[in-house]
Amino acid sequence: MAKRLGKRTIAFQQPPAIMASAAIVGEKEGQGPLGQFFDVVSQDSHFGQKSWELAESEMQKQTIALAVEKAGLQMTDLDCILAGDLLNQCIGSSLASVEAHLPYLGLYGACSTMAQGLALGAALIDGGAIRKAAAAASSHFCSAERQYRFPLAYGGQRPPTAQWTATAAGAAILAKGGSKIRITHAIFGEMVDMGVKDANNMGSAMAPSACDTLEHLFEDTHTQPTDYDRILTGDLAAVGADLLVTLLRKDGIDITPVYSDCGSLLYGSEQDTHAGGSGCGCSAAVVCGHILRDMEQGTLHKVIFAGTGALMSPTSLQQGQSIAGICHAVVLERAN
Amino acid sequence: MAKRLGKRTIAFQQPPAIMASAAIVGEKEGQGPLGQFFDVVSQDSHFGQKSWELAESEMQKQTIALAVEKAGLQMTDLDCILAGDLLNQCIGSSLASVEAHLPYLGLYGACSTMAQGLALGAALIDGGAIRKAAAAASSHFCSAERQYRFPLAYGGQRPPTAQWTATAAGAAILAKGGSKIRITHAIFGEMVDMGVKDANNMGSAMAPSACDTLEHLFEDTHTQPTDYDRILTGDLAAVGADLLVTLLRKDGIDITPVYSDCGSLLYGSEQDTHAGGSGCGCSAAVVCGHILRDMEQGTLHKVIFAGTGALMSPTSLQQGQSIAGICHAVVLERAN
Repeated sequence: MAKRLGKRTIAFQQPPAIMASAAIVGEKEGQGPLGQFFDVVSQDSHFGQKSWELAESEMQKQTIALAVEKAGLQMTDLDCILAGDLLNQCIGSSLASVEAHLPYLGLYGACSTMAQGLALGAALIDGGAIRKAAAAASSHFCSAERQYRFPLAYGGQRPPTAQWTATAAGAAILAKGGSKIRITHAIFGEMVDMGVKDANNMGSAMAPSACDTLEHLFEDTHTQPTDYDRILTGDLAAVGADLLVTLLRKDGIDITPVYSDCGSLLYGSEQDTHAGGSGCGCSAAVVCGHILRDMEQGTLHKVIFAGTGALMSPTSLQQGQSIAGICHAVVLERAN
Repeated sequence: MAKRLGKRTIAFQQPPAIMASAAIVGEKEGQGPLGQFFDVVSQDSHFGQKSWELAESEMQKQTIALAVEKAGLQMTDLDCILAGDLLNQCIGSSLASVEAHLPYLGLYGACSTMAQGLALGAALIDGGAIRKAAAAASSHFCSAERQYRFPLAYGGQRPPTAQWTATAAGAAILAKGGSKIRITHAIFGEMVDMGVKDANNMGSAMAPSACDTLEHLFEDTHTQPTDYDRILTGDLAAVGADLLVTLLRKDGIDITPVYSDCGSLLYGSEQDTHAGGSGCGCSAAVVCGHILRDMEQGTLHKVIFAGTGALMSPTSLQQGQSIAGICHAVVLERAN
């Protein structure tokens, strides 16, 4: 059974474990500073498929299969797949798992989807509803560009605040026990809309929700930033991460000693991604490839992963609606 | 704590309650045979808004607020809203709850979303992760037509197998106890893809998944159709419902004595909706307006609600992908 702490936080009394995780990325992501931490860097951005959408599905499918294999399991050992992506009707994820013949829960949390899946999966396992599950998320630069912005061949200009949708997928296998790494707490985020209407400045749209979720988490758990080895947001990128640090400082909280952002970590400054990475796959791959590996190896012990999403659609933007941010978070802890 | 029964079913040992529910529909839905059971029949299909998308959001927002009011609660009493719709990036639901200042979980299960929300919400409450939650779903004929098919003014022809996207929203308030109506079991559905590629024949695409989920539920709980007062699918409509009956009969199961389908119930045969209703709001409004009211009044005691969704996008159809069906179900029981 879970216990509620303070206003928002869910504390798992027998914390669900992350048995294994996997990350598969595209060529550009493989060339970035985290390239060595991903399980597979694909040289084929089509992943052997005939459309970008199918390429994304194939990437997510391979990532889930690899995570299951690394956990020493068969697909049939899972009770459920929780997955989501940015494509209309979340088709990338449903196509990825249609042949899995497993119960499937489609999620939509924009770029916060991986955190939403980890939080929900942990809560379902803790409550006994399921025993083992995969949480997964993906994004693909080419499917996202076409859907959200311009045809690739158009070569649209990008302002400095813009983020680059990562070609990446991450998957984690959750279970009742059997691993060193546990999800001890989860917090479902509240939408915060500060009136940002610029889809090329999603970091600013999302930072206030990250601030809200982190402040609730610190308060509910009576902890402070330095109680964690790492506080990781995903994917605020350079503009949003700076804004988050500023917002928290105004409330007397300094996260800078332990703070990183998945969108800032994924690409090198020479890779011309402007503010940094984004897309459901960005934080999914950084957490499943890099952070969980560091936890496994013992260089990180206690981590907050706060996934951030920008809730908007091309239609809502065209109609003049502002972009709400949302931030779901989990606390990951390594048993000594 | 939940207990697993058989292969797939989740049995809640202290079944979460449905404290109250609400349904708001459009004019055409109000003119149908269930018109009197809905809380509000709006004469304004714009719901006072300037776009169809905002109209849908406003309808869902009002439905959640009404359900909260009927439960005798304030919005701040909720720990979470679980919601989804058919619009790209599920924007109808996020805009509906952006001002609620509550933790929000975005779901995507196409027309199975209401069942997914009830199942997930019940599991989260049973496991102690949340105490009270709203599960909601909506669809709007005009926002769906534009997105999936043709501009309204084009007057596209519809084949007899086509379904009519309902302008409707439903919301239910879930809590640990405090009501006669309980969710005793839940089952997360598996995608089933039988190769149907015709978006005007979604009933056929979804029926096999409904068959799969119902068969698992009967087997896991050692029950048969006549153990229930009503088995309700949503939204297979005439074509899919017939197919489901046939598929189950082949396996020796006869649901006809207790079977109804939300898509078949919503409209009268004179309303020219062809096979019947569809859209996330169809089953949401039929369950939250009609079925839960009958249970409250004691004319129904034990009901299976099996929500069905067609997992596809306009892009996936254009690319030649087939449509997978999914079916999440809950068992509703009235305490005597």
